[in-house]
Amino acid sequence: MLGRVIGVYDSGFGGLTVLRALRARLPEHDFVYLGDSGRAPYGGRDADTILDFSEQCVERLFEEGCALVVVACHTVSCVALRHLQQRYAPEKDSPRRILGVTIPAAEEAVSKSAGHIAVLGTARTIASRTFDAEIAKLGPHRVTSRAAPLLAPIVEEGWEDSEVARLAIAKYVEGLETADTLLLACTHYPLLERTFCEVVPAHVRVLDPGPAVAIALEGWLARHPGYVARGRGALRVLCTGEPETFRQHGERMLGAPLPAVQHVALIDGRLAHRERVEIPTGQVVRPSTPPPR
Amino acid sequence: MLGRVIGVYDSGFGGLTVLRALRARLPEHDFVYLGDSGRAPYGGRDADTILDFSEQCVERLFEEGCALVVVACHTVSCVALRHLQQRYAPEKDSPRRILGVTIPAAEEAVSKSAGHIAVLGTARTIASRTFDAEIAKLGPHRVTSRAAPLLAPIVEEGWEDSEVARLAIAKYVEGLETADTLLLACTHYPLLERTFCEVVPAHVRVLDPGPAVAIALEGWLARHPGYVARGRGALRVLCTGEPETFRQHGERMLGAPLPAVQHVALIDGRLAHRERVEIPTGQVVRPSTPPPR
Repeated sequence: MLGRVIGVYDSGFGGLTVLRALRARLPEHDFVYLGDSGRAPYGGRDADTILDFSEQCVERLFEEGCALVVVACHTVSCVALRHLQQRYAPEKDSPRRILGVTIPAAEEAVSKSAGHIAVLGTARTIASRTFDAEIAKLGPHRVTSRAAPLLAPIVEEGWEDSEVARLAIAKYVEGLETADTLLLACTHYPLLERTFCEVVPAHVRVLDPGPAVAIALEGWLARHPGYVARGRGALRVLCTGEPETFRQHGERMLGAPLPAVQHVALIDGRLAHRERVEIPTGQVVRPSTPPPR
Repeated sequence: MLGRVIGVYDSGFGGLTVLRALRARLPEHDFVYLGDSGRAPYGGRDADTILDFSEQCVERLFEEGCALVVVACHTVSCVALRHLQQRYAPEKDSPRRILGVTIPAAEEAVSKSAGHIAVLGTARTIASRTFDAEIAKLGPHRVTSRAAPLLAPIVEEGWEDSEVARLAIAKYVEGLETADTLLLACTHYPLLERTFCEVVPAHVRVLDPGPAVAIALEGWLARHPGYVARGRGALRVLCTGEPETFRQHGERMLGAPLPAVQHVALIDGRLAHRERVEIPTGQVVRPSTPPPR
């Protein structure tokens, strides 16, 4: 067996909504989740930066004993998945494999839509036009994509069920009334699903792609025996940001208590091991050598 | 003369609201502005990361010929200013000097307040408790600090004059009615000043600290002749993110057209020179050497 645990990589804690769907579908598998929360959000970053960050995170998950990594972040999946696959899994039988969320999400939207799909995501996801391209491969559907950069911060603030959320969603879906399917292409948005359903017209199906990603993964595992050993539903969680903040947000995303969150330090812009760093209050004075003159 | 231009450093484009006040007060000075937009927002980052980023940015401004750098970002000023000053300007007559926005803002709030100051800022600014500490040095004022993480994204979305902005502000100022002064301790918030004034009770003074920072800088320059040569009001703008996005947001912050924005690349997590990188659409495949097995 090449791997003993399935890796799930996300730019922060949003991917825990995907992990929630994966664990519900595959309760006998062990997972290790890496959230790059110290550098989140990725949404406004340039492509080169996203490639660098995603290489580091995927390599860390390989180190953790993963032969299979699921990129749960829509931004990374839209921008960097092909690069990651060519770099780490160039052959059909490469000992490591990397899967994303874009294609399962696109397939699910196409299977549900009568002809017009609306896609909401981060600025970077939408600018990549990856959903337009992937949906175009599957059928003649019309696609209307729109960046909704305020929605993830609203979820992070815990304001999903607020008038602020309802008004923001109403602004973002303005003019999308002819769509019959609204794809939530950001891992934060499933927490807004109920609010979306309140705001959009009744004929619009609001689609959280998480369950479709889980079904696709189940099918992949069945077709690729030997990549991942079954386990006992264990979960480890790593993050590059502040673990306690991560835990607080993460439990809402996962819909369940999180195990102790392990901190992965960022040193000179790269992931590294080290002990958890306490966040000091007040101004920070760090011992340092004199700078070059 | 030690420097020919004043450096202004911010985590992104928000600091252009401070630059706007500086240029209005000091029209005969030249400025170079560096926005670390490729790694913004800093608000959720840990202190070590903010120290690293701010060292890199301040060093870049020294390279640009600055003997004086103004840290326009409240988060950096609250977390890292003392570190930067000890590292780069340990003596009263150090050839380089670094000023922040926290103390001028605190002084202005204390001079205006009858006794109760409310402070709104990023999560990191508020968690640092630097405003509490600085205001306590100046008087017996009561301070109520609150993180308002949704307000900067609202400004970036261009929704300052929207019901979303009004409702979000109303939620953030809930329970702050006994304050007489509300300090806008994030460089994005001045664009919300009018909306704040609509929402908060009439007895609350909404305080954009930008003009006070400019007056403090003017006084510092008068007390420290020899640090900055007068110029002709020229402006150069550098950013680490995507220049066109920066320009679009930046012009709203500055309230004036921006000159061509120069891109400063981030390579392996550090600032470097290089040509502007075009953001490709679709998935990105970058030529790469095979990874270590």
